[in-house]
Amino acid sequence: MALAGKHHRVVILGAGFGGLSAAKTLAKAPVDVTVIDRRNYHLFQPLLYQVATAGLSPSDVAAPIRAILRGQSNARVLLGRVQAVDRQNRIVLLSDGRRVPFDSLIVATGARHAYFGHDEWEPVAPGLKKIEDAIDIRRRILLAFEKAEMATDDATRQRLLTFAVIGAGPTGVELVGAIAELARMAVAADFRDIDPRQARILLVEAADRALTSFPERLSAKAKTQLEDLGVELLLGAKVTRCDDAGIEIEDGAGRRFIPAATVLWAAGVQASPAAKWLGVDGDRAGRVPVTPQLHLPDDPNLFVIGDTALVRGADGKPLPGVAPVAKQEGEYVARRIRSTLAGKSIKPFAYRNYGNLATIGRKAAVADFGWIRLSGTIAWLLWGIVHIFFLIGFRNRIFVLLSWLWAYFSFHRGSRLITGGDN
Amino acid sequence: MALAGKHHRVVILGAGFGGLSAAKTLAKAPVDVTVIDRRNYHLFQPLLYQVATAGLSPSDVAAPIRAILRGQSNARVLLGRVQAVDRQNRIVLLSDGRRVPFDSLIVATGARHAYFGHDEWEPVAPGLKKIEDAIDIRRRILLAFEKAEMATDDATRQRLLTFAVIGAGPTGVELVGAIAELARMAVAADFRDIDPRQARILLVEAADRALTSFPERLSAKAKTQLEDLGVELLLGAKVTRCDDAGIEIEDGAGRRFIPAATVLWAAGVQASPAAKWLGVDGDRAGRVPVTPQLHLPDDPNLFVIGDTALVRGADGKPLPGVAPVAKQEGEYVARRIRSTLAGKSIKPFAYRNYGNLATIGRKAAVADFGWIRLSGTIAWLLWGIVHIFFLIGFRNRIFVLLSWLWAYFSFHRGSRLITGGDN
Repeated sequence: MALAGKHHRVVILGAGFGGLSAAKTLAKAPVDVTVIDRRNYHLFQPLLYQVATAGLSPSDVAAPIRAILRGQSNARVLLGRVQAVDRQNRIVLLSDGRRVPFDSLIVATGARHAYFGHDEWEPVAPGLKKIEDAIDIRRRILLAFEKAEMATDDATRQRLLTFAVIGAGPTGVELVGAIAELARMAVAADFRDIDPRQARILLVEAADRALTSFPERLSAKAKTQLEDLGVELLLGAKVTRCDDAGIEIEDGAGRRFIPAATVLWAAGVQASPAAKWLGVDGDRAGRVPVTPQLHLPDDPNLFVIGDTALVRGADGKPLPGVAPVAKQEGEYVARRIRSTLAGKSIKPFAYRNYGNLATIGRKAAVADFGWIRLSGTIAWLLWGIVHIFFLIGFRNRIFVLLSWLWAYFSFHRGSRLITGGDN
Repeated sequence: MALAGKHHRVVILGAGFGGLSAAKTLAKAPVDVTVIDRRNYHLFQPLLYQVATAGLSPSDVAAPIRAILRGQSNARVLLGRVQAVDRQNRIVLLSDGRRVPFDSLIVATGARHAYFGHDEWEPVAPGLKKIEDAIDIRRRILLAFEKAEMATDDATRQRLLTFAVIGAGPTGVELVGAIAELARMAVAADFRDIDPRQARILLVEAADRALTSFPERLSAKAKTQLEDLGVELLLGAKVTRCDDAGIEIEDGAGRRFIPAATVLWAAGVQASPAAKWLGVDGDRAGRVPVTPQLHLPDDPNLFVIGDTALVRGADGKPLPGVAPVAKQEGEYVARRIRSTLAGKSIKPFAYRNYGNLATIGRKAAVADFGWIRLSGTIAWLLWGIVHIFFLIGFRNRIFVLLSWLWAYFSFHRGSRLITGGDN
């Protein structure tokens, strides 16, 4: 850090896919990079649902940010929580009072799940964004089977063995598929008084099909594959109530209440409070609108990327909140900062879509590459290869691969621990 | 469970080494076995310190009890917390009101760490018995480095980089060695403003040597190996105070205060409240005195084993609270129940000591087999082989072995996640 203060200071908020790809793309640039995150690890969110369903351990899907950036001498890492951004004086204020000055700022703080004005549903129907969420969900699912085994009446037992996932986007589909496999295979032989295979597993979606970001033909394939796993799809069904007893849904047939002990939320996200920090107006989901160069309209050195940004694709629609978008945006702003410092200019950001993948279960997935659409075993294998390839850290790759192989051949789950809570 | 009620009912409290070995030894016996534990997993406690020091994941050292007993058709598993034992009516009462009747009862509920009348030290100096303890300790250790990196004055930085382990038994030695390796190697290159290798790592012991359960020559070897790792041994030193600022110790040179942000307790244990449940008097450490047949003097069908029992060896000294003792006791009571049901009698329990092992760090350990005493690399390899061999579950063995190989060749730690808490 001998040159600190002489260099252009780039501060990156958030070490998700966007923030890390920006940091790494700046590795050889004549800048000082500071990455600030409230966690000490990067989370590989696409596999978090496997932690929630006892397939993987938290450390299989997370890697310390310091270890990732260890070899990058122009980068430093700060553990801290953003309180505000003083745009006038170019300072990030952290909640413990520290002040971090910047010349360029990259905001990449992601999103949380959102309940569309029903925040009271959160304790009943947790979403899946953090490692703590995954461990909480794992605990709920495993405890439901344990409590069902102890139940003394049929109604209670049935409620405990009913699992409802709300929202049939990729996360909801992956989660519900993994729960179905857990019940039908991994824990099937472990109980004496209940048969976990009798569990009722629901996927509730307000739209008329699952995976609306995929072509209709693949939605239909996904539906068949989910039903083969024993998942009941409730399409065109809006959730109107959520409490400890279960969920109330409204569809063409009217309103009805479904008793369910485990309800999980995968129906919507809300961007982190970046708009508030920056003093700008976010869209309905809290995303910050940026120029095609990914900066604020009135501030060319203040970038917002990833799930926190509202960026429109070539078709005018907002780009989806997925890892490849965040990564490409991170690379773009880093290249832009480098170019600007070198007195050059670069073209506006253009997202290159290499394809969409969603997994459902063992040998079940869908893949859309535009020019080719796949489903079943081949899509599933492809999904596995892509996810192993993009996992950060040599150890994680090896361990996740081995966990998968072990789970595949044994039908078991390795992380079936009920931790936390009061028992 | 068609024959339930006709068979002799054996209830086992606790699925640790003792409880599980009793359950498994009863596999072919004409009895109904019920294993009650407040956790859904068996914990391989000898490796828990590696979870606390970011080497292993929780699921590497724990396996679901149901999965372990899946194939044993005469066994069932209940998740529950013991409230009391009604000896008159032969019923175990659980905290949720359930009542579990028994003909024979095996109490194997283990021990917790104890603070010798200083319970106020617990929040400051946590001990290591549960997975939650290990994650809390991991969090404290990793956060200390993070906070030291942010510190603005030398005194604060030095306090944050001082780690003190109290108690130099096997757990304390293993823990302090792993912390030293974490600081000297795994995180050494990760920080910009501090050098983790400068961390001060203390092992405080009231006796005049470490590992008092080993021969003096091996204690001396352990001391040298710890010092090679950069651990300061404070022998003959009593802890007289423990608070957020650090520890006060008293030794031959008088009293002094050592500022330390991370203090860990490995100095003593207290048996679970089995004596209270059974209405008998425990010894000073809460252990229940039993006959040489491991049952209560006035009740031949009420057994107490493992860390909860006070059993004397051939030399008249209490057997130590280690896994092999608990396992052999579990097997013994199971064989005794079988024999009694068959109208036969068996000899009193006799512990067979196959040897003591304690590891210190990379290529550093001590081993005492009575006829041969080893230290250094060979003892370390032996320790690894023995622990892998006794790990329950095929997956755990493979994964722990790979984690160790990876850590050995890379000098990294795979589980460096700061989770929980409020950040």
